[in-house]
Amino acid sequence: MHRIGVITGGGDCPGLNAVVRAVTKSAINLYGWEVIGFEDGFKGLVENRYRILDLQAVSGILHRGGTILGTTNRDNPFNFLIEENGQKEFRDMSAVVLENLDRLGIDALVVIGGDGSLNIAYQLHQKGVKVVGVPKTIDNDLSATDLTFGFHTAVATAMDALDRLHTTAESHHRVMVLEVMGRYAGWIALAAGIAGGADVILIPEIPFKLEKICEKIEERTLTGKKFSIIVVAEGAKPEGGEMVVQKIVPESHDPVRLGGIGNKVGEEIERLTGKETRVTVLGHLQRGGSPNAFDRILSTRYGVAATKALKAGNYGSMVSLQGSAVTTVPLEDAIGELKKVPVDHEMIQVARAVGISFGD
Amino acid sequence: MHRIGVITGGGDCPGLNAVVRAVTKSAINLYGWEVIGFEDGFKGLVENRYRILDLQAVSGILHRGGTILGTTNRDNPFNFLIEENGQKEFRDMSAVVLENLDRLGIDALVVIGGDGSLNIAYQLHQKGVKVVGVPKTIDNDLSATDLTFGFHTAVATAMDALDRLHTTAESHHRVMVLEVMGRYAGWIALAAGIAGGADVILIPEIPFKLEKICEKIEERTLTGKKFSIIVVAEGAKPEGGEMVVQKIVPESHDPVRLGGIGNKVGEEIERLTGKETRVTVLGHLQRGGSPNAFDRILSTRYGVAATKALKAGNYGSMVSLQGSAVTTVPLEDAIGELKKVPVDHEMIQVARAVGISFGD
Amino acid sequence: MHRIGVITGGGDCPGLNAVVRAVTKSAINLYGWEVIGFEDGFKGLVENRYRILDLQAVSGILHRGGTILGTTNRDNPFNFLIEENGQKEFRDMSAVVLENLDRLGIDALVVIGGDGSLNIAYQLHQKGVKVVGVPKTIDNDLSATDLTFGFHTAVATAMDALDRLHTTAESHHRVMVLEVMGRYAGWIALAAGIAGGADVILIPEIPFKLEKICEKIEERTLTGKKFSIIVVAEGAKPEGGEMVVQKIVPESHDPVRLGGIGNKVGEEIERLTGKETRVTVLGHLQRGGSPNAFDRILSTRYGVAATKALKAGNYGSMVSLQGSAVTTVPLEDAIGELKKVPVDHEMIQVARAVGISFGD
Amino acid sequence: MHRIGVITGGGDCPGLNAVVRAVTKSAINLYGWEVIGFEDGFKGLVENRYRILDLQAVSGILHRGGTILGTTNRDNPFNFLIEENGQKEFRDMSAVVLENLDRLGIDALVVIGGDGSLNIAYQLHQKGVKVVGVPKTIDNDLSATDLTFGFHTAVATAMDALDRLHTTAESHHRVMVLEVMGRYAGWIALAAGIAGGADVILIPEIPFKLEKICEKIEERTLTGKKFSIIVVAEGAKPEGGEMVVQKIVPESHDPVRLGGIGNKVGEEIERLTGKETRVTVLGHLQRGGSPNAFDRILSTRYGVAATKALKAGNYGSMVSLQGSAVTTVPLEDAIGELKKVPVDHEMIQVARAVGISFGD
Repeated sequence: MHRIGVITGGGDCPGLNAVVRAVTKSAINLYGWEVIGFEDGFKGLVENRYRILDLQAVSGILHRGGTILGTTNRDNPFNFLIEENGQKEFRDMSAVVLENLDRLGIDALVVIGGDGSLNIAYQLHQKGVKVVGVPKTIDNDLSATDLTFGFHTAVATAMDALDRLHTTAESHHRVMVLEVMGRYAGWIALAAGIAGGADVILIPEIPFKLEKICEKIEERTLTGKKFSIIVVAEGAKPEGGEMVVQKIVPESHDPVRLGGIGNKVGEEIERLTGKETRVTVLGHLQRGGSPNAFDRILSTRYGVAATKALKAGNYGSMVSLQGSAVTTVPLEDAIGELKKVPVDHEMIQVARAVGISFGD
Repeated sequence: MHRIGVITGGGDCPGLNAVVRAVTKSAINLYGWEVIGFEDGFKGLVENRYRILDLQAVSGILHRGGTILGTTNRDNPFNFLIEENGQKEFRDMSAVVLENLDRLGIDALVVIGGDGSLNIAYQLHQKGVKVVGVPKTIDNDLSATDLTFGFHTAVATAMDALDRLHTTAESHHRVMVLEVMGRYAGWIALAAGIAGGADVILIPEIPFKLEKICEKIEERTLTGKKFSIIVVAEGAKPEGGEMVVQKIVPESHDPVRLGGIGNKVGEEIERLTGKETRVTVLGHLQRGGSPNAFDRILSTRYGVAATKALKAGNYGSMVSLQGSAVTTVPLEDAIGELKKVPVDHEMIQVARAVGISFGD
Repeated sequence: MHRIGVITGGGDCPGLNAVVRAVTKSAINLYGWEVIGFEDGFKGLVENRYRILDLQAVSGILHRGGTILGTTNRDNPFNFLIEENGQKEFRDMSAVVLENLDRLGIDALVVIGGDGSLNIAYQLHQKGVKVVGVPKTIDNDLSATDLTFGFHTAVATAMDALDRLHTTAESHHRVMVLEVMGRYAGWIALAAGIAGGADVILIPEIPFKLEKICEKIEERTLTGKKFSIIVVAEGAKPEGGEMVVQKIVPESHDPVRLGGIGNKVGEEIERLTGKETRVTVLGHLQRGGSPNAFDRILSTRYGVAATKALKAGNYGSMVSLQGSAVTTVPLEDAIGELKKVPVDHEMIQVARAVGISFGD
Repeated sequence: MHRIGVITGGGDCPGLNAVVRAVTKSAINLYGWEVIGFEDGFKGLVENRYRILDLQAVSGILHRGGTILGTTNRDNPFNFLIEENGQKEFRDMSAVVLENLDRLGIDALVVIGGDGSLNIAYQLHQKGVKVVGVPKTIDNDLSATDLTFGFHTAVATAMDALDRLHTTAESHHRVMVLEVMGRYAGWIALAAGIAGGADVILIPEIPFKLEKICEKIEERTLTGKKFSIIVVAEGAKPEGGEMVVQKIVPESHDPVRLGGIGNKVGEEIERLTGKETRVTVLGHLQRGGSPNAFDRILSTRYGVAATKALKAGNYGSMVSLQGSAVTTVPLEDAIGELKKVPVDHEMIQVARAVGISFGD
């Protein structure tokens, strides 16, 4: 092996740069390989846009959020949007990808991405590309690894927001609702809620009843606590189906954010309890900023492990944290299945034990 | 003078506790006075709810956001909401206030609050209460002081958000819009925008044109900058009148937040430029959290100055920062007039000089 | 079981309050027990100083560093310093402890502490006290658990310091040395060094050679990097025995800090390379401050697990993190053996792969 | 004017990059000038080492600590260290500087620096160089400006350290001493001490008596406060002359840090009161890291003002903050006189009013 490629795909996540740096440094330091970084995820792989990553190129990026390579959420080489003569069309561009890799003399590829990107990585692997995946999802909902980088930084950001909301909630005797990420899995809400001393945590895995939330608030009032803090995962749902979320701006690309569950829950609580309620939607603040120590270390471990997996010929695999050890799993096992919070998970029990309600 | 009262009124603001602590400590240490804190702003003054503030009571609160006394946004003794037999009615309860003060043997009052609270303080002063005001508005829009506490902490919070959004904007080649506080004055947006390296700042004082914003974004694209950062004060307005903001949830108590100008601007930019745009509304995160060093110091100076103003018999005044000196001004001069950002203010010119557009 | 006691012993550590809160809340919420907190570690147990911990008493302490119960480093009931008639004498006061527990009707004890405190806990257990331990060492060097709370916060503090030193090192072309905690084990130095982008990490487990450190610095100079960052654990040692540390202030109670290995290494590097070198000793800053999200969660899990272990009759045990699960181990196994960094540990390899030297 | 030069001189300070960026952006945006940055302060001016600063070169540096141009503490073109044939010699190289400026076609110079650098700037001005100064001293001890950038960030860092030390002091019932910068003026200690809730502040301007410090500690013990926090400026002195600080490492380049006043005060307090005392020396942590919002704004204002002063032909001047306005003063007035803390300064009085002792 002489030259490898690196790609960052999908949504932004603190630690991407740290992985890129670790892959590059370890490839050069350990094996003397050359490293090529493709720009803007799989889009750059199709369009043959790249830059050479030497030690200088990855210097000073460990602590920086985002990715120096750029990323996109949607581009898929197997179903790639082409605009020609004013016409839009989706085409399979995988042959172009293979050509590009061949022409650049790239022997193997490290794909850093979430479920979608790893799926593409797996398909490329099936087409013969030597590929190793690095799991990235800020929601921590990939089943084949105990932890993904970026998650702990997002939890820290959400906890910091809860610390801030606490003081205002207390001064004004208000209910404060914080909506955090987590469309399908409630890991961020659960962890941030425990760390931030929330009174109620609503997650997709446990359908909630509004009256149970209100009961918790009333119970607190009776013991002299005139405020309450509620963390809502964006994918939380009331028992018995979707809460009717008023679709506010139909053409919006991000409908959940505008009229999301946080606002709906806030409105209903105010209506039912008569207590002043304020809603904050944390949104993109969770994706940005410098990765914390935990994520910088995990990202660095993942990056080195990816390089070593390539060296070992361990293609079609994904690096993974199992307990406290970094290992690899087959890419095939890594994709497709979401890691939801088991409703009897130890941390759910811990949360309940310290008095947190899940609205059930 | 033997006993003084303290009140915190209006919206939460980092530094309230620091003022309460400084008033209490200086009153006890310098003059041996007793200090009474009324609970929940003017509401506690009407309802005679209070606690004794000794040195122990204000220990360990310097760094804490919020107010240990509680606060409310709306209660006005001269127009006080009474609920009796299921009937709601507004009554002048100022006589009750005078009675309460008299019965408690309170010789003078320190009122920490914004325009509304200081107005009430002035009315009490006209009724014969010995009163000194401490200016509090997170928006920094009180005309009779150069600075209010809490403002710099809010700016720091907004800047931190901009730092985070930067990395994601850059990685995804997006336009990021951050809506910050400032209904009538754009101080927070202006300061945070300069500190956070924004490309466009929209403030109430300078009506904007969408096409000018888009021009700025395009101009950046031409020089290789594929992302842009826009700070919008919640009171920013397009030239020629209100932007039609779709009223989303009519019964909401906080309509601006839900369907505010930030979202509207974001939508329009995405529509006009075709660039992915994301909006974050910072909301209550700006009011909470520990005051920064600047605000802890300013609050402490204000608190001590308020005590000294009472000692000096300087009633009916408000403490005020003029340049680098803390002094007092008549309460009468302090209220009513809003301090807007002059459109030719040095900081506007500085912002323009480093390439920031105001959409004009 | 009706009433349990809690003790915090040994050095300060972020997360102590979170454990006390979780023990108290879970004991009350799950089982309706009463909780008594002894003051100042084992000293309060001997001197029968305590307070009742109800839900109110542990409210608002989750995010606070330190321990509301107080702690001491040295007091051991089995060898307790008594001062009588101007005479100092060490006595076995364990009988008094048993008496106190009996008189207070305390059925069981949760001891939160490090090696020393857990040893005492084990001895009490042998005397018949129903005891469960919670492991606390900021150095993370307890062998019977994967992680102790406080460690990640200390690493974050050290990383933050490295981030700061980086900018100054770069501007001045200096070598910056940061001495961090770790007398016997280098976990903090290792983790902070990886997270903070250090160039050299010196830990007790790997004896260093000064010339190897200088080689690394020179090698960086050759590639255009005019500065270097070195993290030194306080227990790091040169090959072939102790570096002769000039004993500076003989009567000092904290000799290592004053003339510690960090300063010595800094001096020698400056002498050998001729490069300006500056040394920072982080010291007690690592022990204080609010626990980060990770440690608040781990502390809460530990606290709940301790309560449940008591309920399960699992006496003489210590709660422990194994992989991602909280479980228990016998106290006997938990004490005595230090968890050092294995010299071939994956994180050592990761550090070397990204170019970090250990001076060997 | 077509081309200007920029230099950063003296010790590192948060905000240097923000000034460089603002000078560059405003020079290009407002007047279309070219900007040259000299490397490593005046050393680069003598050695003709420089880089072109265009908009790209100053992109993304606003939030970064340090200076992209590099800096040195000692180099003075009028007394410049030359090493030739193993001989060291100081020579006047000002003629070379004039030559370099001439050859590069540089019409004017912006010098960002402290007392020493501004002195050199003044001498260059006397030799005919068109020069404008920007005041930089983290200690805030320049007499001709109300504030220097970097100061507020250093205060914030010191306050953060005090917040951390508080929790440990309280848990262990200790006296915690924090030594901060300030050799000749106590501004950092004063501001950080007020913001961080210190009990004692020792500054060079107010000679202290050890017994007064101990009295304060005892007085706190009597009111149930078992811990105390002491902030010591590195230049603080006992009444009646120097405290005998044992010179520890004679060859050290930084003797104050090793055996500084903080350690001495700590030892003496422990000896006199018998209370466990711990000392932390903050050192270089105060100079590094990202500038806070206040300093980013002040730096940007200074940078733009420097460019405008050049345009206005206002040579031989220094930009300066007077109250809330940025203006200019003659360089001649700016140098030489140190701004010490007046012993009756309002902030000294404020500190005393809230119970802080100055050991006098």
